[in-house]
Amino acid sequence: MKNYHVKPDSKLSLAHFDPDDTGDYKKTESGKEKAKAATEKLIGKLSELQERLYANGNRALLIVLQGMDTSGKDGVIKHVMSGVNPQGCKVVTFKTPSVEELDHDFLWRVHQKAPAKGQIGIFNRSHYEDVLITRVHGRISDKMVKQRFDQIKEFEELLSESGTVIVKFFLHISKGEQKKRLEERINNPEKRWKFSEGDIEERKFWGSYIEAFEAMMAATSTDQAPWHIVPANRKWYRNLIIADHVVDALESMKLKTPQAPAGINFNTLKIE
Amino acid sequence: MKNYHVKPDSKLSLAHFDPDDTGDYKKTESGKEKAKAATEKLIGKLSELQERLYANGNRALLIVLQGMDTSGKDGVIKHVMSGVNPQGCKVVTFKTPSVEELDHDFLWRVHQKAPAKGQIGIFNRSHYEDVLITRVHGRISDKMVKQRFDQIKEFEELLSESGTVIVKFFLHISKGEQKKRLEERINNPEKRWKFSEGDIEERKFWGSYIEAFEAMMAATSTDQAPWHIVPANRKWYRNLIIADHVVDALESMKLKTPQAPAGINFNTLKIE
Repeated sequence: MKNYHVKPDSKLSLAHFDPDDTGDYKKTESGKEKAKAATEKLIGKLSELQERLYANGNRALLIVLQGMDTSGKDGVIKHVMSGVNPQGCKVVTFKTPSVEELDHDFLWRVHQKAPAKGQIGIFNRSHYEDVLITRVHGRISDKMVKQRFDQIKEFEELLSESGTVIVKFFLHISKGEQKKRLEERINNPEKRWKFSEGDIEERKFWGSYIEAFEAMMAATSTDQAPWHIVPANRKWYRNLIIADHVVDALESMKLKTPQAPAGINFNTLKIE
Repeated sequence: MKNYHVKPDSKLSLAHFDPDDTGDYKKTESGKEKAKAATEKLIGKLSELQERLYANGNRALLIVLQGMDTSGKDGVIKHVMSGVNPQGCKVVTFKTPSVEELDHDFLWRVHQKAPAKGQIGIFNRSHYEDVLITRVHGRISDKMVKQRFDQIKEFEELLSESGTVIVKFFLHISKGEQKKRLEERINNPEKRWKFSEGDIEERKFWGSYIEAFEAMMAATSTDQAPWHIVPANRKWYRNLIIADHVVDALESMKLKTPQAPAGINFNTLKIE
């Protein structure tokens, strides 16, 4: 289940990663049910760990979700994170930057949304869009892309050194799976609200996006802020893998029972 | 279940409201189990309505939670809102204002945190603290309190006229119940992190707080932004009442199936 970690400074070819993979789980109804049960268990654990994170209030978790259109970023949030206490979990969706945001460096608006101590922050798309869509459409030079990779690494290092654990997921679907999902949105009137003509436009650049993702992950996967490639053709396996990594990330913090405030003698306190 | 709505411009005496009330539910294990089952059902409905609110993206819901220390504001968020997709739900906890915030009017920081279209916003404490704690400790004049009541009403009217439905809850516990809950925090080492010496200090002003709450609710309960007094000595009844009101508020929006984006001929669209 843990084979999809992108090693720092490695060459990366997404062709070697099967978006259809389901690990030890069979691609049958019973395999799916088993994976779902395992996911439920992990989500229970996640909720407990999140309570502890919140109560301690000295660490934070940042989850970055990236992937092609329809790869399941919204689905992950809905299915993996819906059991979590919303008081300790903030989702940030980065849209087209505003005029004010464009008047600042590309990390300005992102830094403002970094999770506070005690919180889980989920970036549904992120600062990585600024080395993807811009690159695919030739809006920034290769030199600038490299510069941004370095800036991103240093920014994430700052967060990490300040107590934030970072996990980054690339939801890996095949081009055929995207076709199926877009057709579903088109043919099912209940799902049409999610459809955007831009999705068809961007799909024409599939190959360039894959290259941009490969370069991006190879350059920005670090020990403190690793990229994980998540086989995402099957939603149930995708959810399992992510729940598993998120639990791991929280466990790595070794969160203790939260401390009582200092300087109070609890044995002599009386409530009138 | 709906008798606890504060009528606009009415005189209000909290002594007439029983914090121990459980409505049609018996104060027994079986009454509690029945109420919990009813709450679960409402939470399921709430999740569905929230999905629709998010997909439509043209209305918002603002939930304001106020009440004495230990009255259960955090508990409501945990138990009523944990099933909700965190992508469409933002909790804001208002703490002591920062120096920058104090350099602005008291609604400045609050306005920034108003829920966006498609979102449920939950204020855990709110702008109402600025007519409560300040008043109880004589930090603002009666004239200023009155002025703030008017300013709050106009602010909430603006939000309401812009598509936000507002529901405000006062979690009503008795002084004896607070004593029990504070003692629990003191005696249970696992709960001590929630304890603050300020809680004991503020408890000394119980009577003044009750008066401040009464005046505040009488002055600021409007048709668009009503106050509800929630009997909160029993957590299971408190959760039920709030889930019920939140579902009502979402239903009042009469949210339709979200519309497909305009100008697209879905019948001729082809995905290559």
